[in-house]
Amino acid sequence: MSLDALFRPRSVAVIGASSDANRIGGRPIAFSKRAFQGAIVPINPNRDEIQGLTAYPSIKDAPGSIDQAIIAVPAKAALQAADECIAKGVKAAVMFSSGFAETGDDGRALQQELARRCAAGGMTLLGPNSLGMFNVHAGLYSTFSSYFDPLWPRTGPVGIVSQSGAFGTYFLAQAVERGLGFSHFVATGNEAGVDVAACVEWLADDPDTRVIMIYLEGCRDGARLRRALARAAANRKPVVAMKVGVSEQGVAAIASHTGSLAGSDAVFDAVFRENNVHRAQSLDELVDVAYACAGGVFPKSPRLGVVTLSGGVGIQMADAAVEKGLTLPRMPDTAQQKVLAMVPFAGPANPVDTTAQVVNDWTMFTTILGIVAEEGAVDSVVSFLAHMGTMPGLMDRLKSAFLDVRRRFPDRVFVLCARMPREMADEFSAMGFLIFEDPTRAIAAVAALSKLARGFARPHAAPSQYSASAQPLPIGPINEADAKRLLGAAGIPFAPEKIVRTRDEAVAAATGIGFPVVLKVLSSDIAHKSEAGGVVLGLRNADEVAAGYDRMMTRVAAHAPQAKLEGALVARMIAGGVETVIGVKRDAVFGPVVMFGLGGVYVEVLKDVTLRLAPVDRDTAKEMIRAIKGIALLTGARGKPPADLDALADALMAMSHFAAAHPNVTSAEINPFIALPDGGVAVDALIMTD
Amino acid sequence: MSLDALFRPRSVAVIGASSDANRIGGRPIAFSKRAFQGAIVPINPNRDEIQGLTAYPSIKDAPGSIDQAIIAVPAKAALQAADECIAKGVKAAVMFSSGFAETGDDGRALQQELARRCAAGGMTLLGPNSLGMFNVHAGLYSTFSSYFDPLWPRTGPVGIVSQSGAFGTYFLAQAVERGLGFSHFVATGNEAGVDVAACVEWLADDPDTRVIMIYLEGCRDGARLRRALARAAANRKPVVAMKVGVSEQGVAAIASHTGSLAGSDAVFDAVFRENNVHRAQSLDELVDVAYACAGGVFPKSPRLGVVTLSGGVGIQMADAAVEKGLTLPRMPDTAQQKVLAMVPFAGPANPVDTTAQVVNDWTMFTTILGIVAEEGAVDSVVSFLAHMGTMPGLMDRLKSAFLDVRRRFPDRVFVLCARMPREMADEFSAMGFLIFEDPTRAIAAVAALSKLARGFARPHAAPSQYSASAQPLPIGPINEADAKRLLGAAGIPFAPEKIVRTRDEAVAAATGIGFPVVLKVLSSDIAHKSEAGGVVLGLRNADEVAAGYDRMMTRVAAHAPQAKLEGALVARMIAGGVETVIGVKRDAVFGPVVMFGLGGVYVEVLKDVTLRLAPVDRDTAKEMIRAIKGIALLTGARGKPPADLDALADALMAMSHFAAAHPNVTSAEINPFIALPDGGVAVDALIMTD
Repeated sequence: MSLDALFRPRSVAVIGASSDANRIGGRPIAFSKRAFQGAIVPINPNRDEIQGLTAYPSIKDAPGSIDQAIIAVPAKAALQAADECIAKGVKAAVMFSSGFAETGDDGRALQQELARRCAAGGMTLLGPNSLGMFNVHAGLYSTFSSYFDPLWPRTGPVGIVSQSGAFGTYFLAQAVERGLGFSHFVATGNEAGVDVAACVEWLADDPDTRVIMIYLEGCRDGARLRRALARAAANRKPVVAMKVGVSEQGVAAIASHTGSLAGSDAVFDAVFRENNVHRAQSLDELVDVAYACAGGVFPKSPRLGVVTLSGGVGIQMADAAVEKGLTLPRMPDTAQQKVLAMVPFAGPANPVDTTAQVVNDWTMFTTILGIVAEEGAVDSVVSFLAHMGTMPGLMDRLKSAFLDVRRRFPDRVFVLCARMPREMADEFSAMGFLIFEDPTRAIAAVAALSKLARGFARPHAAPSQYSASAQPLPIGPINEADAKRLLGAAGIPFAPEKIVRTRDEAVAAATGIGFPVVLKVLSSDIAHKSEAGGVVLGLRNADEVAAGYDRMMTRVAAHAPQAKLEGALVARMIAGGVETVIGVKRDAVFGPVVMFGLGGVYVEVLKDVTLRLAPVDRDTAKEMIRAIKGIALLTGARGKPPADLDALADALMAMSHFAAAHPNVTSAEINPFIALPDGGVAVDALIMTD
Repeated sequence: MSLDALFRPRSVAVIGASSDANRIGGRPIAFSKRAFQGAIVPINPNRDEIQGLTAYPSIKDAPGSIDQAIIAVPAKAALQAADECIAKGVKAAVMFSSGFAETGDDGRALQQELARRCAAGGMTLLGPNSLGMFNVHAGLYSTFSSYFDPLWPRTGPVGIVSQSGAFGTYFLAQAVERGLGFSHFVATGNEAGVDVAACVEWLADDPDTRVIMIYLEGCRDGARLRRALARAAANRKPVVAMKVGVSEQGVAAIASHTGSLAGSDAVFDAVFRENNVHRAQSLDELVDVAYACAGGVFPKSPRLGVVTLSGGVGIQMADAAVEKGLTLPRMPDTAQQKVLAMVPFAGPANPVDTTAQVVNDWTMFTTILGIVAEEGAVDSVVSFLAHMGTMPGLMDRLKSAFLDVRRRFPDRVFVLCARMPREMADEFSAMGFLIFEDPTRAIAAVAALSKLARGFARPHAAPSQYSASAQPLPIGPINEADAKRLLGAAGIPFAPEKIVRTRDEAVAAATGIGFPVVLKVLSSDIAHKSEAGGVVLGLRNADEVAAGYDRMMTRVAAHAPQAKLEGALVARMIAGGVETVIGVKRDAVFGPVVMFGLGGVYVEVLKDVTLRLAPVDRDTAKEMIRAIKGIALLTGARGKPPADLDALADALMAMSHFAAAHPNVTSAEINPFIALPDGGVAVDALIMTD
């Protein structure tokens, strides 16, 4: 169902319309009357006229067809209003009414009934409990937000989709103050019909929208969200997201606030990474990055030039740049000479420190800016202007010089760090400069642009969770041997091993495989073999194998008398290499997720793991491997030979495809997968299904 | 030398005074004329009158005594001006003049001569190349900063000391805009005389100053800086510092900017931690934390209450609070009932989500605020007001209710997160509320207050780097046996071991010590024994020891034919435990620093180490141990018994005292120190001296 009627209606009815422009049913009329070119039809059984417009007693009496109806009546009357809208053929309802799922079980039942009726009647539903929506370009304000008094949003390229009306309008206000312009705003409320994903999908194709800001607390349909984000990425529209519920206490607060589970925050991170979404950690970052994206220039590389009036701020920016993954290439000698010819005691390398000498001739500053852009081999230039922006008349005199630099290098990002009056900032923004006050935040925003640009260069296909040929594994517990067989068939290499049922078979198997060997008990009833005494390492000859087999079986029987012991595995003991863990887990919202980390304490104590949605391709698998903090252990730290990362990536891909092929796998793990200098070997395997 | 004449002069002469209020020599006169009650004496050989004041041809002609002289003449005339000031008995010079160390070798020589003359003449020197200073309470502006045009600082409790004039006035401006008030500002320039430490020391005792902001690029006298910061801490004056030069590129930029070494950034961190300094990572954080400190209330615990109009922002704040180390205690049931009685669908636990229901009766919001403060068992309350601050008249109507809550709980920190006009924010700030726009930044500021409060509760003695009885170790290389003897005498427990010169002695020693043993070659010429083949582990009987001794000696001789082999160490091999590393290193700026980390990859790959200035006491040693990320490995992760942290702390203390007792130790390391469930054992030791 297209959301055109919601986002871009030609006619809007207001059910529960009020003559009082300060009341909930009066505000949307007062707001939209200012500029909306379509029909505004107040519905009120007691009045003929509302705010100068002809009012009708019921939606069925409204003249012509109605695209969007605002329902601003109490919950108990809302269902009937929805029914009447459906009967009239209204295409989209914006429901302000509260008193639904947010109030407990009765409200939840009412909401389900409402959603059912709207779906059956073919009417798009925004809400209930929604602050509404607006289309800034059309001048349509189907909202009862009271925040507009001080600041009216201007038109521009930014679309906002928020699960919270209060916070959505809060960061909107911040962004308006920052000078950003907007296409649409939607607060999805209780999401009985339209959710964030549906809105993002629409905005991804909306020509008025170039940047999408989203605020998320949770998600019920992970596949749809991934599709929507992938579509935005494919259309090269940056999405800047704030997602709350990271901590246990945050998640508990979500449960109490929305009555639903938050989903695993780490998996949201993986979804964002997959679809080139910038996740902001704070309000300021959310607005900063959206503002930077609205500039429309994305740097082709992380190479950054810094020009500064203050040496200290140059250092600060260099520190921040390195931390955020940007690089500061050294200016070529010829360029340095040009700078020094103007300012003898400048720091000409990069950061380029103009020193306070430029106060004698400010045009030196813009000239140096041009030199850095032209000869510095950089794709972004951040400059620190200190108080230039507040010196009377100075920026006016320099404006044409700044504009000239901007025009000569249209594909570079230029940031001016300065305190300046709002109007001046707007003017320089319009000229194509990004204006920041805090140098660290400026650097962070450039780093975000650079990362988004890298992401856009990757292909963005609509992701799918499960293979077309996906089929469940047989139900029931899967023992280690079966797990290895299944994962081996999926392409994961295992150490040579044999199933044995007796001590003598164990000795024969070990002799065949070659010493040293490992013995492991085989039982579907025992998940943690080591703790049950079911593992014996480093058996070096037939005698040790025989004795080890007896010892292990006795120990396990004593530890788990109820467990059915099916024999043992004899496997070659792998020497050397680095222990890693490769796992998959089915997320309740997003489906199978693949996990990679270093074995042992790295996963358990240091939580040094990385996640991606399954299945992963080779590039993503390698990116995962490189994303762990302990990557140096795999690339030759402490004199070890580097591990075979290709083989590791193969195993990650195989595991991810295995999960995508079997929807009933809740989790699977290879722990350890030993990464060797040449190849790699899985040593243990566990598969859980439901 | 007291800095009273610099910070609080009764009379000020301006050498190089100008009639033009926009020139460097004219600005301080124009600025100070507005309110300064002391004498302002312009010095200019060509004029009788300047800006309405009587001018004198030379400082010697100035009437009466002069406390402070501003020297605003070119570098080549500055030395003579300084001489004349000294002759006149001027107590402090504020030197604007540039052209000294920042311009290269000639300038550096000139600066040294200037410093020498001022020191000899008993005149305090600020600068050269300083933007000057001001005393806001006295109305004295000995500065040529041009930033005052839009915003004049008001009086208040914050003192600023900055190594950069440009950035110092930049964050000053930001802080002024935020509503902060100031006592003093000093830009230390080239620091030929007064440095940041000297200024901080003075401000630590200044009754007008309650909060100190510092901006640092480097430090030449580490001991003085530590003394100054310790003094501020002892006087319970929070210091909020920004220190740049974290990254390699930042450090390179410092070298080019200041021509001096930056010192180890990690050691600055240790100095800040030692003296309860809050280190800010950005301009915003610097201003936020100073603003919060200026409120003057420091929470007694990290227990935080959150009251929010938006459930989503409550989650956001809970996430941020957990990340920053604050806790959100659950509201008692009785308090929850009170909230629910007012707002039936509120989230009453904490965060307390008032929901949008409060729009019907806003006084419910302040009532709930009071309930949380009174019954929530919290020391800080952060509330999110969304758009309350911009709703016409609303905050005026609620002002007395807010004030009532504030007065009832004077020892709680109250933060209001809201967008509101500057004047309203000032008014609520004056009422004792902290006003923030970004909820995440508000939480971070409360966390900083809470951490500062914890720090103030600790004793702050003036630190000393070296023991009173410190004496150098004998010069020359120290072999492992000597290193162990020296560190053993310092109180560090070593594994039983014996020095042997022959294979037979090795066998006899091993038999005496008990198997298994380790053999290690003994040679002052070999620093890395393992790499030279000079270590044999796990020798289980006399035969293995004999063979191992021969093998090792042959191998080492082949690897390092020039090395003098002094025999070998036979030591008991320690089983189990957790390998740690305990080290000390002498920092060029701050002296001996003690280091702790987990052994092997943890130190080398993950850089999971913690530093403190030596010597450390027991509390600090334990704090160090708990500060590493892998602490779980020492407290019983993966089924291991917990390590004896007291024994570990003892070893850290002993190592730190050893370094403090011997000024010529450049570094010493015990790697590994094996932390055992009961006690701990040092296995290897290395000491380097100069």
